[in-house]
Amino acid sequence: MYIGIDIGGMTIKAGLVNDNGEIIAKKTIKTDVGHPEKAIQDIANLCFDTAKEGNVDFSDVVAIGTGVPGTAHNGVVSFAANIGWYNVDYAKMLSKLTNKPCYLGNDANCALIGEWRFGVAKGYKDVVAITIGTGVGLAVIVDGKMLLGNRSAGTEGGHIRIKERGLKCACGREDCWELYASTTSLLRRAEAIAVANPDSIIARLIAEKGLDGFTVFEADEKGDKEIAKMIDEYIDDIVEGLVNYVNVFRPELIVLGGGISKRERIFKPLEEKVNAKAYGGKNNPQVYIKTAKFFNDAGIIGAAALAMQD
Amino acid sequence: MYIGIDIGGMTIKAGLVNDNGEIIAKKTIKTDVGHPEKAIQDIANLCFDTAKEGNVDFSDVVAIGTGVPGTAHNGVVSFAANIGWYNVDYAKMLSKLTNKPCYLGNDANCALIGEWRFGVAKGYKDVVAITIGTGVGLAVIVDGKMLLGNRSAGTEGGHIRIKERGLKCACGREDCWELYASTTSLLRRAEAIAVANPDSIIARLIAEKGLDGFTVFEADEKGDKEIAKMIDEYIDDIVEGLVNYVNVFRPELIVLGGGISKRERIFKPLEEKVNAKAYGGKNNPQVYIKTAKFFNDAGIIGAAALAMQD
Repeated sequence: MYIGIDIGGMTIKAGLVNDNGEIIAKKTIKTDVGHPEKAIQDIANLCFDTAKEGNVDFSDVVAIGTGVPGTAHNGVVSFAANIGWYNVDYAKMLSKLTNKPCYLGNDANCALIGEWRFGVAKGYKDVVAITIGTGVGLAVIVDGKMLLGNRSAGTEGGHIRIKERGLKCACGREDCWELYASTTSLLRRAEAIAVANPDSIIARLIAEKGLDGFTVFEADEKGDKEIAKMIDEYIDDIVEGLVNYVNVFRPELIVLGGGISKRERIFKPLEEKVNAKAYGGKNNPQVYIKTAKFFNDAGIIGAAALAMQD
Repeated sequence: MYIGIDIGGMTIKAGLVNDNGEIIAKKTIKTDVGHPEKAIQDIANLCFDTAKEGNVDFSDVVAIGTGVPGTAHNGVVSFAANIGWYNVDYAKMLSKLTNKPCYLGNDANCALIGEWRFGVAKGYKDVVAITIGTGVGLAVIVDGKMLLGNRSAGTEGGHIRIKERGLKCACGREDCWELYASTTSLLRRAEAIAVANPDSIIARLIAEKGLDGFTVFEADEKGDKEIAKMIDEYIDDIVEGLVNYVNVFRPELIVLGGGISKRERIFKPLEEKVNAKAYGGKNNPQVYIKTAKFFNDAGIIGAAALAMQD
């Protein structure tokens, strides 16, 4: 038995996970943002409670893995802006409180480890994982090993510049890929169409239901041509970044995560488009694209998988 | 003693290299393009001749390494367009003819291995090497290991899309980085300025001496303001691609190769500009940028280093 901890800006989720990557029990607490010592004490108690919840004696827990939304290096959270942690000696502190081996990783990396051990990436040696949400995340397995970079500060993969429109990114650069490939971008574009065309299907749907992913795809299905064209362009922007990563890493597989990756309208054209544009065309090995197996539980399962250090 | 072979589109160079990465003797032959069997026989003879040239008995040669301008996988040249080799079982064939262990790598990867073992990248674990020439090449060491990708088809690093001007790339995409960061791009821009300004310093220099890198930098030094502005923009285009790779790999070091990397005007501003734009700014480890130690002999030394499999 392992425990996987998924630290988020709002909640901390814990799961008791067996050797097959199945969640036996789950518990959630609120994140005490900005107070790492208190939070780690909370997490230790959460571990005890989660084992209890699963009717497992805590002595049967082999190890604890944690995924954190930020830079994790050698068990230390060096930098996690949205939970307010800087240079927190996490693994050592949690290990002291729980008396278990504790492992720490970046949350996107953990999610890929989960897919690699128990999900769609099982058996592959070269994998690129892209998660599309409010931002765009990257995790990479190179020849069977997670790419970390110097002090584990690599794979900030949403932040590759792909255009020159002058759109400002929070990272300080302009025209980063995530400004075009994130769901935030999809919504921004849909809103612009609605504002410019007050009688359009999308404008009416937004007035009725508010703006979210569902509204956008509903407008597309109901025949809003501007929205359809916009989604096609959005797909092409996703493709451009994916092709960049194929040319650099030439993975066997791309794992696509985030709610939008489950949309056929988005997902279906990607594999063909990416392979058509990738360097060397048919002379090079083709790339498979799959949607992630784990969604809401990806963090827990991935963190637990991180703890399975065999 | 090792032998390093550098296969190019015009010539094949061989060097007898000692354990310290020093070239003891060197010989060159013409490349018999499109005839791999004949070429490999030539290379075997070249190995014997190079050992003789260095007054070394061939039995003292431990192994032979070769760098090839294309995709090399498990000793096989799968795809090397400009020498016309496809699926050539190189290492096995050369080994049969020379009775030595033979190793094969992509030439850009070999050059980085040379820098890593004997040059400026010595002691680093995470290194990105960028070679700027008529194209732009990439080689990467991730946590002490060369990044190869599926069937060694990765690190086509000139082919990441960074703009949207519609410039066609030979790879089939538009606006690949190498269209903006290669010396080809620098010359193309200089020529456009000369054509538009027939009385400019650059136009006069081109009329007098022809168009090459020297002319461009001479015009800059002589005060051609349009050329100065263009070089500044060219530097920024190099920076954008470098920052992309810093964000993805977070290397400790970038090794810059190609003749232009020795130009102070180009090289000097890069480190500061790249670190200023890289993700996380001062919160993340800074990146060093160094020019490669080996230039004309990089291929030979790198190929020999590849053969030092200890």
